[in-house]
Amino acid sequence: MDLTFLGTGGSVPTTKRNTMSIALRRGSEVLLFDCGEGTQRQLMSSSVSFMRITRIFITHHHGDHFLGLPGLIQSMNFYGRTAVLEIYGPEGTADLVTRLLGLGTFDLQYQVHGMDLAPGQTVAGEGYRITAFGTAHTTPSLGFAFHEEDRPGRFDPQRALDLGIKEGPNFSRLVHGESVMVGEERVTPEEVMGPPRKGLNIVYSGDSSPCQEMRDASQGADVLIHEATVTSDLSEKAKEYGHSTSKDAAVLAKDVDAKVLYLVHISGRYDEVEPLLLEAQGIFPNTIIPSDLDTFIVRKE
Amino acid sequence: MDLTFLGTGGSVPTTKRNTMSIALRRGSEVLLFDCGEGTQRQLMSSSVSFMRITRIFITHHHGDHFLGLPGLIQSMNFYGRTAVLEIYGPEGTADLVTRLLGLGTFDLQYQVHGMDLAPGQTVAGEGYRITAFGTAHTTPSLGFAFHEEDRPGRFDPQRALDLGIKEGPNFSRLVHGESVMVGEERVTPEEVMGPPRKGLNIVYSGDSSPCQEMRDASQGADVLIHEATVTSDLSEKAKEYGHSTSKDAAVLAKDVDAKVLYLVHISGRYDEVEPLLLEAQGIFPNTIIPSDLDTFIVRKE
Repeated sequence: MDLTFLGTGGSVPTTKRNTMSIALRRGSEVLLFDCGEGTQRQLMSSSVSFMRITRIFITHHHGDHFLGLPGLIQSMNFYGRTAVLEIYGPEGTADLVTRLLGLGTFDLQYQVHGMDLAPGQTVAGEGYRITAFGTAHTTPSLGFAFHEEDRPGRFDPQRALDLGIKEGPNFSRLVHGESVMVGEERVTPEEVMGPPRKGLNIVYSGDSSPCQEMRDASQGADVLIHEATVTSDLSEKAKEYGHSTSKDAAVLAKDVDAKVLYLVHISGRYDEVEPLLLEAQGIFPNTIIPSDLDTFIVRKE
Repeated sequence: MDLTFLGTGGSVPTTKRNTMSIALRRGSEVLLFDCGEGTQRQLMSSSVSFMRITRIFITHHHGDHFLGLPGLIQSMNFYGRTAVLEIYGPEGTADLVTRLLGLGTFDLQYQVHGMDLAPGQTVAGEGYRITAFGTAHTTPSLGFAFHEEDRPGRFDPQRALDLGIKEGPNFSRLVHGESVMVGEERVTPEEVMGPPRKGLNIVYSGDSSPCQEMRDASQGADVLIHEATVTSDLSEKAKEYGHSTSKDAAVLAKDVDAKVLYLVHISGRYDEVEPLLLEAQGIFPNTIIPSDLDTFIVRKE
């Protein structure tokens, strides 16, 4: 599983940072979080296949988070997509998607479903679920918490051999949950399988001032992706526009015991990110500010 | 006056070529022709100030020619634009602009006027006029012919001195159209001013198969900017989708006695443009295929 930061800029793109979009790749499936203008071209510049996107999650209806949708939808069409595309977001998203599909003349050959999510609602996928939570912005807005399902523990072949089981069909039986007999002794799967492996939790803030909902959703996150539009000297301005500072994000990451913090939605005023990074790392050392198109493998520590 | 090719790609952008947009810079004014997704960021990567754009001309309502409008409009707003922005295009453009302005939540602080143009209609500016003409595409489509007004001839100071006029106020009088006396002799402006300088004609095809309207509009063009989606081995496909080949464009440039031909709207299938360029230059040698962000000074030969 990996994360590709397609766009990490603030409200207006810069030559360095496009508007927001993050791809989460898991097996053959790609989930997209936000889709600012130009996202299709960022995808083309990355190793992420845009034809494998199954679901897009839009945090809110500011242009820098969704204006890449019509172009992406039309290019998928041009390249012959037939699979359904689902687009989720806060109230009004179904209507917004309908209006985006009505822009310009083209003959859509696959289904695009726009759906409104209320805070607390969950979208279930194969091996994961994504829960929307309310955030504190200037327009209805959501954050998203991705929860990977726990997977069975790993089979320990040495332990099985030690218990007198021969390599072969009996190994397979144990892996698939059956007990096997060794002479008069019964060996159960529990004896040779490690503990269940906990699924990964990834939380994305979208645009938001600090709020309780964000705090609740982030508890113990393996990966916390948080907006940090400005440094804390501009905290009044950040609050006025429903944004967070790099300090806000780092304090949250520390308080909820996150494993790693990625800062995104960096204002165009910062040519170099050092001030944001230093401020955050002073509070939460494992902070990263990705550049556009950076990919990070994510795994349970 | 100069032309900046902001995007020169076909229906779908590639990592090398963004979707269509061309900026014509004339004094402090910038005119934009088409505005594909990502144009605002291309502008940021160029030397063209997007705040100086006064008018945008959209050739037709395929996404690759207009989906950059909402982001550009919103970024202009973010940066405090107050001047009116005019957007022209074929039938339905006023309605399209209204719908684009309704996408997402933002508080527009300046006026954006969307206007439909019928073929033959002209938009007059300071020192120029732009005439729309019908083209042959799969949806209502226009091309645009930019005509610069003729300017007065240049003052010839040597000729004035030869006629006995002393350098000083009398030079200025002649330049401003007054006659002056040299002893008993009257010298008229016509005697010391060169012939009127013809304005420049720039013609842009948008997307089109070859057609009579395009031919009529292009007669004697100083600069012909023509789409060349594919090479002539794909001419049937080009015709089917309302496009031109590099050969079509070059034949037109030759027939109408254009001075220079720029080929744009290059299909993503061409990683290198050599096949298109060689085909066109074999017919019309002064052919150029600009790369994205190339700027060319345009002047009367």
